[in-house]
Amino acid sequence: MSKLWQKEGTVVSDEIDRFTVGRDRDMDLYLAPFDVLGNLAHAHMLSTIGLLTPDEYELLAAELRKLYPQTLSGQFVIEDGVEDVHSQVELLLTQALGDVGKKIHSGRSRNDQVLVDLKLFTRSRLWEVAGATRRVFDRLIARSEQHKDDLLPGYTHLQIAMPSSFGLWFGAYAEALSDDMLTLQIAYRFANRNPLGSGAGYGSSFPLNRTLTTELLGFEGLHVNVVYAQMSRGKTEQTALNALAAVATTLARLAMDICLYNSQNFGFLTLPDALTTGSSIMPHKKNPDVAELLRGKCNRLKALPMEVTLVMSNLPSGYHRDMQLLKEVLMPAFDDILDCLHIADFMLEHIQVKPNLLDDHKYDLLFSVERVNELVLSGVPFREAYGRVGKEIAEHTYTPPRTLHHTHEGSIGNLMNEVITEAMNAAMAGFGAEKALAAEKALVG
Amino acid sequence: MSKLWQKEGTVVSDEIDRFTVGRDRDMDLYLAPFDVLGNLAHAHMLSTIGLLTPDEYELLAAELRKLYPQTLSGQFVIEDGVEDVHSQVELLLTQALGDVGKKIHSGRSRNDQVLVDLKLFTRSRLWEVAGATRRVFDRLIARSEQHKDDLLPGYTHLQIAMPSSFGLWFGAYAEALSDDMLTLQIAYRFANRNPLGSGAGYGSSFPLNRTLTTELLGFEGLHVNVVYAQMSRGKTEQTALNALAAVATTLARLAMDICLYNSQNFGFLTLPDALTTGSSIMPHKKNPDVAELLRGKCNRLKALPMEVTLVMSNLPSGYHRDMQLLKEVLMPAFDDILDCLHIADFMLEHIQVKPNLLDDHKYDLLFSVERVNELVLSGVPFREAYGRVGKEIAEHTYTPPRTLHHTHEGSIGNLMNEVITEAMNAAMAGFGAEKALAAEKALVG
Amino acid sequence: MSKLWQKEGTVVSDEIDRFTVGRDRDMDLYLAPFDVLGNLAHAHMLSTIGLLTPDEYELLAAELRKLYPQTLSGQFVIEDGVEDVHSQVELLLTQALGDVGKKIHSGRSRNDQVLVDLKLFTRSRLWEVAGATRRVFDRLIARSEQHKDDLLPGYTHLQIAMPSSFGLWFGAYAEALSDDMLTLQIAYRFANRNPLGSGAGYGSSFPLNRTLTTELLGFEGLHVNVVYAQMSRGKTEQTALNALAAVATTLARLAMDICLYNSQNFGFLTLPDALTTGSSIMPHKKNPDVAELLRGKCNRLKALPMEVTLVMSNLPSGYHRDMQLLKEVLMPAFDDILDCLHIADFMLEHIQVKPNLLDDHKYDLLFSVERVNELVLSGVPFREAYGRVGKEIAEHTYTPPRTLHHTHEGSIGNLMNEVITEAMNAAMAGFGAEKALAAEKALVG
Amino acid sequence: MSKLWQKEGTVVSDEIDRFTVGRDRDMDLYLAPFDVLGNLAHAHMLSTIGLLTPDEYELLAAELRKLYPQTLSGQFVIEDGVEDVHSQVELLLTQALGDVGKKIHSGRSRNDQVLVDLKLFTRSRLWEVAGATRRVFDRLIARSEQHKDDLLPGYTHLQIAMPSSFGLWFGAYAEALSDDMLTLQIAYRFANRNPLGSGAGYGSSFPLNRTLTTELLGFEGLHVNVVYAQMSRGKTEQTALNALAAVATTLARLAMDICLYNSQNFGFLTLPDALTTGSSIMPHKKNPDVAELLRGKCNRLKALPMEVTLVMSNLPSGYHRDMQLLKEVLMPAFDDILDCLHIADFMLEHIQVKPNLLDDHKYDLLFSVERVNELVLSGVPFREAYGRVGKEIAEHTYTPPRTLHHTHEGSIGNLMNEVITEAMNAAMAGFGAEKALAAEKALVG
Repeated sequence: MSKLWQKEGTVVSDEIDRFTVGRDRDMDLYLAPFDVLGNLAHAHMLSTIGLLTPDEYELLAAELRKLYPQTLSGQFVIEDGVEDVHSQVELLLTQALGDVGKKIHSGRSRNDQVLVDLKLFTRSRLWEVAGATRRVFDRLIARSEQHKDDLLPGYTHLQIAMPSSFGLWFGAYAEALSDDMLTLQIAYRFANRNPLGSGAGYGSSFPLNRTLTTELLGFEGLHVNVVYAQMSRGKTEQTALNALAAVATTLARLAMDICLYNSQNFGFLTLPDALTTGSSIMPHKKNPDVAELLRGKCNRLKALPMEVTLVMSNLPSGYHRDMQLLKEVLMPAFDDILDCLHIADFMLEHIQVKPNLLDDHKYDLLFSVERVNELVLSGVPFREAYGRVGKEIAEHTYTPPRTLHHTHEGSIGNLMNEVITEAMNAAMAGFGAEKALAAEKALVG
Repeated sequence: MSKLWQKEGTVVSDEIDRFTVGRDRDMDLYLAPFDVLGNLAHAHMLSTIGLLTPDEYELLAAELRKLYPQTLSGQFVIEDGVEDVHSQVELLLTQALGDVGKKIHSGRSRNDQVLVDLKLFTRSRLWEVAGATRRVFDRLIARSEQHKDDLLPGYTHLQIAMPSSFGLWFGAYAEALSDDMLTLQIAYRFANRNPLGSGAGYGSSFPLNRTLTTELLGFEGLHVNVVYAQMSRGKTEQTALNALAAVATTLARLAMDICLYNSQNFGFLTLPDALTTGSSIMPHKKNPDVAELLRGKCNRLKALPMEVTLVMSNLPSGYHRDMQLLKEVLMPAFDDILDCLHIADFMLEHIQVKPNLLDDHKYDLLFSVERVNELVLSGVPFREAYGRVGKEIAEHTYTPPRTLHHTHEGSIGNLMNEVITEAMNAAMAGFGAEKALAAEKALVG
Repeated sequence: MSKLWQKEGTVVSDEIDRFTVGRDRDMDLYLAPFDVLGNLAHAHMLSTIGLLTPDEYELLAAELRKLYPQTLSGQFVIEDGVEDVHSQVELLLTQALGDVGKKIHSGRSRNDQVLVDLKLFTRSRLWEVAGATRRVFDRLIARSEQHKDDLLPGYTHLQIAMPSSFGLWFGAYAEALSDDMLTLQIAYRFANRNPLGSGAGYGSSFPLNRTLTTELLGFEGLHVNVVYAQMSRGKTEQTALNALAAVATTLARLAMDICLYNSQNFGFLTLPDALTTGSSIMPHKKNPDVAELLRGKCNRLKALPMEVTLVMSNLPSGYHRDMQLLKEVLMPAFDDILDCLHIADFMLEHIQVKPNLLDDHKYDLLFSVERVNELVLSGVPFREAYGRVGKEIAEHTYTPPRTLHHTHEGSIGNLMNEVITEAMNAAMAGFGAEKALAAEKALVG
Repeated sequence: MSKLWQKEGTVVSDEIDRFTVGRDRDMDLYLAPFDVLGNLAHAHMLSTIGLLTPDEYELLAAELRKLYPQTLSGQFVIEDGVEDVHSQVELLLTQALGDVGKKIHSGRSRNDQVLVDLKLFTRSRLWEVAGATRRVFDRLIARSEQHKDDLLPGYTHLQIAMPSSFGLWFGAYAEALSDDMLTLQIAYRFANRNPLGSGAGYGSSFPLNRTLTTELLGFEGLHVNVVYAQMSRGKTEQTALNALAAVATTLARLAMDICLYNSQNFGFLTLPDALTTGSSIMPHKKNPDVAELLRGKCNRLKALPMEVTLVMSNLPSGYHRDMQLLKEVLMPAFDDILDCLHIADFMLEHIQVKPNLLDDHKYDLLFSVERVNELVLSGVPFREAYGRVGKEIAEHTYTPPRTLHHTHEGSIGNLMNEVITEAMNAAMAGFGAEKALAAEKALVG
């Protein structure tokens, strides 16, 4: 009788069971603590509308609070023959409390539970990703400040272009992450809506108090319309994965730069031994495998929003079982991006920057714009100055003016990292995560 | 001498020219008004740092303001042999003002101009999309209110599930658009940053005042770091296209529902003749072609973020010419989504809803949950009530309780469309579009 | 000393190890039997060019042949601290044979080994998929023949269009799979090329005999150019995944039809209880979860070629570690498609078709084209006949001519399933799989 | 009365017309010559089953043959108010021949016509792409032979690895194209099936002779099952676009190599002035814009199969109007890939290779494997030799053995380009294109 809906006399073959359950039970373990939180809020609410007595609620709440730490520590398991995390929690409640345990399912559907668990899970993980992103950001800002005077060739079209600096290079990726934080914020806010009470997507004839569960779970607001609450499935996952893809895009590009700059043909960076590997046949190799895997893993993450799109496209409104598979796309993605952020932080901590790169004469042409601008500032019209420097280069009379005076906002001499940091602070403040954290804490006592 | 960088004696063959220019000049026409705005701000700023005299600035500004209405009305053309919109504008200035016209290129690069034009264009179009989305939203809310008492079968797994209503159905898509508006808002805010002054991606030795151009163009803030300003290329397009894809996802699903509900096997909706087409061999057909094309066009739009991802993936930092191609992905996409929103609005206005659908006995089972809940409210435990109703159905003793009492937030009897509308209002207010509009107006006098 | 390339004194932290190894060891277990095959062929070849003595080769071959059944039965494990399957095999050989075991690495690189294992694995799995596809094909043909006289409404635009039949419907999916078999064949032939001897992508100064290993491993031919052999990485995976996606596309569409036809609003099919599930709150539900999951899993599979594309895009030629991650995309995909094919076969076996569907008057209009054609055959010009039937329908004087006389190739009355079956036979014969199977058998004795 | 299905009294507003027609009329111009071919075959067949008299057929055929050259030369236009190419052709026939012109629509549906036109178009364009691919292949083989002795650093992980050569590098891309030709071949064969006679996807009660039209149009065979013939829509486009994406993947990677090798930090290649552009602010730049645009355009092409997938996913069987939009994805893609192939050929013709690259001491370590192998061939076990060379490098006693003796199949010293060329020849022969070309020629007399 492990399946809520299973009728007597129906035999479900093992093979079909394996096909339908798939990796879903593994995915459900991610949801366990959030299922407990959802149960606590639902039970509380039921007690306010007469579907549970205050005593029944207290019994249920005590039992759920006992369960909570187990779900966090990995002790919670979904027993063989139990279909999902929701059934397992109800089973434990029923084992402990008998009929009172069964009463908690009133006024909701499994769809409801999946939706609210998914929202709480996604909200929580996005905040974790935000924290890890912030750590990489702080590292980048620190390295940017540390190397603000270390010049670096700047490229356009992979051609030597103009002087840049490690201060600019590190700082650019920091600012990218500060923008990615806005995308994370929107995904967080989208996850921070209460779908509980939407039933199977069409609401309930019970006089549910959805405003109360919204408050108890610390949600920013309701997914108001119950049909829309159900339609948020797919959209929650997609929005979250788009945000992870934004972070992954930044990290992948950083990793590409590192792989290139670490090539002997550039030689701008040195990676510590711990971050390189050798070759089974070439004894001289120090390969940037960690950066390559960072790049590759991030590129895979960029594919995931499309996977959700493909599963959801052209499905009419209303729940379809296909949506279950989105858990397998979403949940490991959080582990992956967190791994990537952690490794990126480690790499950025240990990367060594080569000094005095621009002393090499092959970079002399980097300063040609400086030379043009010198002429312009001395009164030569731009087009003429441009032509004159071109001629100097062709005739080998060009001398690079090596002293840079870049002073405007965001330039080599004026990185304005503090402005970037303020933007990052504002982006994080916009999550409104404190309310959620406080509510969760209050629920589990 | 149409190309700024072309050296004497170089012959570029027509074929290569065609390959490199491609559709870029067509795309550049989208940018023309924004190029004028960018020029006005840049010239003003140059006049404050001594690179233009006040008189020169006034001359340039007057000329640019004359040009502006032409760029809006379609009179502006990029002449044969002129490479792009930026060159065309400078050419016109030079034709009118001689050397003064040439001076406007000081302190910036073409990359700079493309970036700022692209930001201004994207910001403007996103606000237009927001407006069109709002109109569809308003239509959906109106239809939701109009049909709040018209019941509709609710499906899960494409199986008859529980009673729904047209009120819920229209309202759900309205709330979806209200969330999509948040995604549009973030894209808008991302587009609403000033990249001007970043040069070729490495800044300038001129003492540019980027804060001033930020203010003049009404940007919310700076892309501070100049390397990052350049890295925003690709990211601006992707973020905007992700937002369009979010809207498209909502519209596509709505269109799928309409196609299905219009099928004779559902028969929930009637489309007016103007929105259907016939068959060349089947005289009885009334095909929902408009809804199908809406669905198909929206599905195509959902592919575009991946197209940007593919062009940008694994490119190291710094400008690459590949990025030019992103214009061809981005710009027509705005036309397409605006068309789709407009047609969706027309369709939603004219769609006719079939009344009294649930009187058909084939929908009797929709009320089984109501029956279960009746029993629960009369004191029967949920699991027992569930079993009892299952038995009634099997033994054909089940009678559907046709009176619905759904009262909770977001349910059939309590749509709370006003709360959804408030959320939509807040999402639009968050754009901060007034500042941008006012600044643009001030610039062109 | 588990890593071939690890130098003394280098400490690789656990965390970095976890990041770089990731799920790779799990993936490598898929490769174990193929690594043994590759070793056997390589060792044999080395013995013909003097890098192994005949005795050494015999020792190695005997040891490898002992190992082979373990790799098939799941007894083979990659020990803790051993980097990959290739190292594990060499470790076992060295444990058993001492220095002779070490000699087998002469004349090849790990890249080489990965490439050849991947080719052999992919070739083998594609043939397995071909077999499973063929079983579904045979089932579809059988059901098509069984139901050739059971009529079904045919739809265009989801509108009732013209009479179809279950014979046509089942047969159409059979023919689709016969075309998908061609895509599988091409992927097979692409996997059926020998990369062994390409070293790290630049060949070897040893006088390797690549023609011999080609023959020993039963490959159809060589990846001739060694740089290209390395470039085939990514391409092998992509080609295989494109083929799986083709099969998945067919299955997903079939599953969509089943979900729709199983809806009460169509009611064309009945699914046995084992293939449906109930609802936790709606006692009347029989949801087609298995078909939905089939659809969803197949849709996920359709995303995988893009995942490979994203990892590989814009990587310059030569090996990059990112490619390791493709194993995680490719290998589970084979398990998934095989599961899907197996379940599809089961579902197609047990699906029940509703008879006499077209007797329902709501389908009368299906016959309007028949009526038009009747008139045409009696001499009325087509355009006039079309107009006349349209008028009959509008004036309710239309009577459906229920007797069908479809006789042309591929029509209701002339399914030509035997021609479709011949095409399928030819597609499978084109793999040339016998040579590969015979060679593998000969190698392991 | 331009629309076949339009009933009197229906007013279709301009706006809806614009939305539904979209770019379809432009796309239809691509189909015009193939529509004439399809009409010729259909009319011939009708004359054999008594639906046209021999005289009527001769009149129609003569008219169609007059029209054919106009469709090729661009004189053919779709007049305002005419819906599509099929209607335009019928209109012209009716204008010329009166009622006889109308009779050609007997026994087919517009869907039928679209399908057969699309097949003929795709078949034709794929053969054109094959030809252009072959020209690039021949160029690569020629450059490979020309530079077989010009060494090049070989990289793995973007790290200096082992000696390679321009012979290998050019040859590798040639072999890649020879494999891509197999993918083109499969797409061609899939396009080379006759769907004519499938009507709206459910066949016809007319005694059509589909075998005859198969022969007349030179198709390899039938899409037998009429439901499947309709289901081939989407699949034809996807298969063709997958093949174009395969070619694009090869070209994009080649372009990435060129951009990198053209960077001053590599300096392996020189591009002629015609293939580079300058900078508006940096007078020294020679940017590889053409190679970058080649890369970018090819990367865009790689996104197209997913666009088709998105439009088609989860659509039940039977025609849907969404499919019309696939023309806009497919048809310009052929123009794009042909442009890319043409430019690639031009670039490969003019690219200049730098000689004696490996004389630079920074590449000394490339020869470390050679040194290891020397030791191995002198009797030192591989692992010991590997360790010894590592030590030599660390202690700066290593001397690179600059003479290479790579002799095995596909190595620097033995490119085997003739074997690669034979594979290419076989791949092209497998198209069976002659039959199609001969049939088309016979039809138009």
